[in-house]
Amino acid sequence: MSTRKPTIADVASAAGVSKGLVSFALNDRPGVAAGTRDRILAVADDLGWRPSVTARSLSTRTSFALGLVIRRAAEVIGADPFFPSFIAGVESVLSDEGRALVLSVVPDEAAELTAYRTLAADNRVDGVFLTDLRHDDKRFGLLEELGLPAVALGHPASTVRFPFVELDDTSGIRAAVSHLVSLGHRRIAHVAGDQSMIHGGRRRESFSAAMSQAGLDDSQVIETDFSVGQGADATRRLLDADDPPTAIVYANDPMAIAGLGVAQQRGLDVPGDLSITGFDGSDISAFVFPALTTITSDPVEWGRVAARTLLDQVATGAASNVTLAPATLLVRRSTAPPQ
Amino acid sequence: MSTRKPTIADVASAAGVSKGLVSFALNDRPGVAAGTRDRILAVADDLGWRPSVTARSLSTRTSFALGLVIRRAAEVIGADPFFPSFIAGVESVLSDEGRALVLSVVPDEAAELTAYRTLAADNRVDGVFLTDLRHDDKRFGLLEELGLPAVALGHPASTVRFPFVELDDTSGIRAAVSHLVSLGHRRIAHVAGDQSMIHGGRRRESFSAAMSQAGLDDSQVIETDFSVGQGADATRRLLDADDPPTAIVYANDPMAIAGLGVAQQRGLDVPGDLSITGFDGSDISAFVFPALTTITSDPVEWGRVAARTLLDQVATGAASNVTLAPATLLVRRSTAPPQ
Repeated sequence: MSTRKPTIADVASAAGVSKGLVSFALNDRPGVAAGTRDRILAVADDLGWRPSVTARSLSTRTSFALGLVIRRAAEVIGADPFFPSFIAGVESVLSDEGRALVLSVVPDEAAELTAYRTLAADNRVDGVFLTDLRHDDKRFGLLEELGLPAVALGHPASTVRFPFVELDDTSGIRAAVSHLVSLGHRRIAHVAGDQSMIHGGRRRESFSAAMSQAGLDDSQVIETDFSVGQGADATRRLLDADDPPTAIVYANDPMAIAGLGVAQQRGLDVPGDLSITGFDGSDISAFVFPALTTITSDPVEWGRVAARTLLDQVATGAASNVTLAPATLLVRRSTAPPQ
Repeated sequence: MSTRKPTIADVASAAGVSKGLVSFALNDRPGVAAGTRDRILAVADDLGWRPSVTARSLSTRTSFALGLVIRRAAEVIGADPFFPSFIAGVESVLSDEGRALVLSVVPDEAAELTAYRTLAADNRVDGVFLTDLRHDDKRFGLLEELGLPAVALGHPASTVRFPFVELDDTSGIRAAVSHLVSLGHRRIAHVAGDQSMIHGGRRRESFSAAMSQAGLDDSQVIETDFSVGQGADATRRLLDADDPPTAIVYANDPMAIAGLGVAQQRGLDVPGDLSITGFDGSDISAFVFPALTTITSDPVEWGRVAARTLLDQVATGAASNVTLAPATLLVRRSTAPPQ
């Protein structure tokens, strides 16, 4: 059905120039007169010529792909609504640019560092997205060593030579606490995420700061790994305490939904007996009962902005940091004055 | 920090052979004596030499990567627990093999077909996974034309020249209906998925067959696109009917969870007033209240098996079809005798 693909030789012959000149024109190298270049490109286009990415890669030393390494256990990644939406945003930019996304899912830090080394050694990607930033994040040093461009998703813990795209989630947590305080809650707990991750730590710190500012005890905090199972366990422990909270601020939506299930299983009315807030604004949060009061971010937009920033960084060696519109509180039915 | 990478010339010099012989040995071509080959590989290893994937790709015409194109709207993909788990399973095999996964997320059929053409034209992947099989699936013809190996996830609607890895979900739907009938339900509805997808259609057919077999009316079926929003809407329509169902079989877990929310918002007791079953065995299904009776599959294992099958297909041009262990019913608290 398909005929032989046109080659550079075909283009050269049709344009009446040398193959070398065609190659220079197609790879946008200097030394080709603008008029000649335009004519060669027009002929190539007429013939339906497409560059081979493999050949382009060798001549330009780029792979026309970006990399994303996600460090999560296979068993927990399915419950996280962030990555599919983030990836969809990245793809919406890359597909316009003819770029591919190379994805790795790895279980631990050793496998994670190996994944970056392999991506670089294989010249597989031109740059990488760094997600789930950590306080002692070995990736920054490794990537500098490897000479691999990167964009960080979130504000790094220390000064690094990579641009970042960050979301201010502190204002969202502060808004959730403020909303609960204004409803009359005094015993407010926090089911925190993974404290080795910067965003897990920052949400916890924001919680403590907001509680202290309201003159309230900020000690009811339980750390988790962000999974639904640990979110449910943390909720049970909080409700078993001598002075159980009247409200719980969760660090993500899946844990909040699990906490809602635990409360209802115990016969508690949400929000009558217990108010609950999530973080993500995930689709499902609008459809559970009662609909979840949550802090909305826009992971699709985050993906779009991160992709544009990384493409800039790859192309020019420098890109500006971006601060996304802050996460905002979306009040639904899972919060009310304490009974 | 890093020193210059060793080249083939370095290996040749250290081994006392020609660069051509080193290249032949490293690319495992015939014509190199076994002893010589072993010595060259040992020297290359000592020097820390790594082949460039780009150079290997040109000499072997493989890209050492597999492709996955997901056709879903950016806005709905976050609610689907299947893909992250499936991808984690694929990765667990690919990382051992030094292969990468190239991922595309596309919004519609035109973009989907373009994505496969681009992957092939760019020699970006050695083969692709085909998910969400459709009744009139243009991908099979296109991939044959492109000469791109593939493995289908699910049983294709017609005979194709690609192997497939399928899950028998009909037994799961039949078990759900049978469970509800044995509890005494007679008015059982089905919130079906996308009927242009084979698995959406097959789940619906299995529902009808099981209802007919039990001598029950199988006409209460509403079609959706598998999204939580349409799952909630379908539930509202069913509950608004003159003879509302006492039980609903949903085609996936997110819609079942949304349906649970709709029922509870109306003051219905689940399972007292309405029994509900899902399909996925997703993590969150165990943590909602009441915990969801659902049909469990194992998307991580599906990913592992599909990756091994596709690697076989790429390497040998032939791989056996695989039928996974059938999905089974996991009875939890969202089903009970009708009141």
